[in-house]
Amino acid sequence: MKTREKILLASLVLFNDEGEANVTTVDIANELNISPGNLYYHFHGKEEIIQELYSGFELELTDILEAPLQNSLSPQDAWFYLYIVFEQLFKHRYLYRNLNDILQRYPEIDRRFRKLLELKLRSAQAVADELVAANILDASDIQLSRLCDNVVLNLTFWLNYNSLRERHCRDDLTIHRGVFQLMSLIAPYLTDDFRYFYDDCCALFEVLSRDD
Amino acid sequence: MKTREKILLASLVLFNDEGEANVTTVDIANELNISPGNLYYHFHGKEEIIQELYSGFELELTDILEAPLQNSLSPQDAWFYLYIVFEQLFKHRYLYRNLNDILQRYPEIDRRFRKLLELKLRSAQAVADELVAANILDASDIQLSRLCDNVVLNLTFWLNYNSLRERHCRDDLTIHRGVFQLMSLIAPYLTDDFRYFYDDCCALFEVLSRDD
Repeated sequence: MKTREKILLASLVLFNDEGEANVTTVDIANELNISPGNLYYHFHGKEEIIQELYSGFELELTDILEAPLQNSLSPQDAWFYLYIVFEQLFKHRYLYRNLNDILQRYPEIDRRFRKLLELKLRSAQAVADELVAANILDASDIQLSRLCDNVVLNLTFWLNYNSLRERHCRDDLTIHRGVFQLMSLIAPYLTDDFRYFYDDCCALFEVLSRDD
Repeated sequence: MKTREKILLASLVLFNDEGEANVTTVDIANELNISPGNLYYHFHGKEEIIQELYSGFELELTDILEAPLQNSLSPQDAWFYLYIVFEQLFKHRYLYRNLNDILQRYPEIDRRFRKLLELKLRSAQAVADELVAANILDASDIQLSRLCDNVVLNLTFWLNYNSLRERHCRDDLTIHRGVFQLMSLIAPYLTDDFRYFYDDCCALFEVLSRDD
C-alpha cells in the first residue's frame, strides 16, 4: 500500500474510533510512525484528508444507490440491499455520528452530502415503485413517499439513535437492528402473499441478535 | 423579568439562531447590553447557562411525556399531542440540531438526555397501547415496539433531517411536516373504522403546507 492510501485508511480508523473532531494530523502521523512533515507532503492538513475520504465514500455509495435505478429487485434482494447500504454507512460512521458538526465545518461536504441524500431518496423510491409494480407492496403514493423519507431518515440517523439507546452496542448488532427496524416499517405494506416474508425477517433477526 | 431570566431567554434565542457552539458569554452579554461581569455574577460561564436551560427543558418535556402515562388519549388527542411534543423540541432546537456535539461536550446533559429518551419511548408505548386497547390501532407487539422506536427516532432527528432536505424551511411547516410524517407511519396500523382519520390528516396537511 502506498503511503497516501495508508494515511487515508489510518485516518478513517481513527476518525471512526475517536470522532473526527478529536483527531489531529499529528495523531495520524503518530499512528503510522511517520513524521508530520511526511504526512504534510501527501495532504496539506486534515481538511484535504477528509475531502478525499468523503470522495471515496461518495463514489462507492453512489454506485450502490444507482444499482436499483437500473435493475429491479426481489424482496429478498431488497433486504440484502439494505445490508449493503447500512454497511457502507457504517464504514464511514465518523461522518454520520457527528453529521451536523462536520457539515458545518466543511461547506463543500455539506453541499455534496445534500445531493447524496437526494440520491438516497430517489433510490428508495425506485425500489418501492418496483415492489409495488410486482404486487409485493401495496401503498398509496403519499404513503410511499412518507415511507421513503422515513427510510432515508433512518439510514442517516440510525447509528446515532442506536448509540443513544445503548452506549456500547456490538457493531454487527447495530447493523442488524437498523435493517430490521426498516423492514418492520415496510412490513405493514406487504401484500397478503408476501406477509410470510416479514415473519422470516423476524425469525432471522432473533437468531442474529442472540448473545453468543 | 429578572436579569437571570433575561439571560436565559437571550441565550436560548441566540443558541437557536446561531448554534450553541458559535455563541460566547460575551455575545450574550452584548445582546442584553450588560457587562460580562454582570453576566458572570449570575452564571459562571456558558456551561452553567446550558445546564439551567436544559433543566427547564427537561422539566417541561417530562411533564408533557408523563401525561399519557396517566390519561388515555383519543386519536384526535394523540394527534394534537404530537404537536405539543414537537413544539417543545422545536423551542430547544439548538440541542437537537447539534445533539452529538453537545452531548459530547456536556457529559451531565448526555446522561440526562438518555433518560429522557427512555421516557419518550415509554410515553410512545403507552399511547400506542391505549390506541390498540381502544381498537383504533391493530398491530403485533413487535410491530408496535418498532413503531415506537421509530416515533422516538423521528422526534429526535426530524429537525436535522428536514433541514438537510431543505435548507430554509418555514418554522411552522417544519413542525407540520414532522407531525404528518409520524401520522403517515402510524396510519397503516389504523383499523378500518378509523382509516378516515388519516384522510383527514392528509387533507389538513395539504391546507397547512400551502404557500401563502
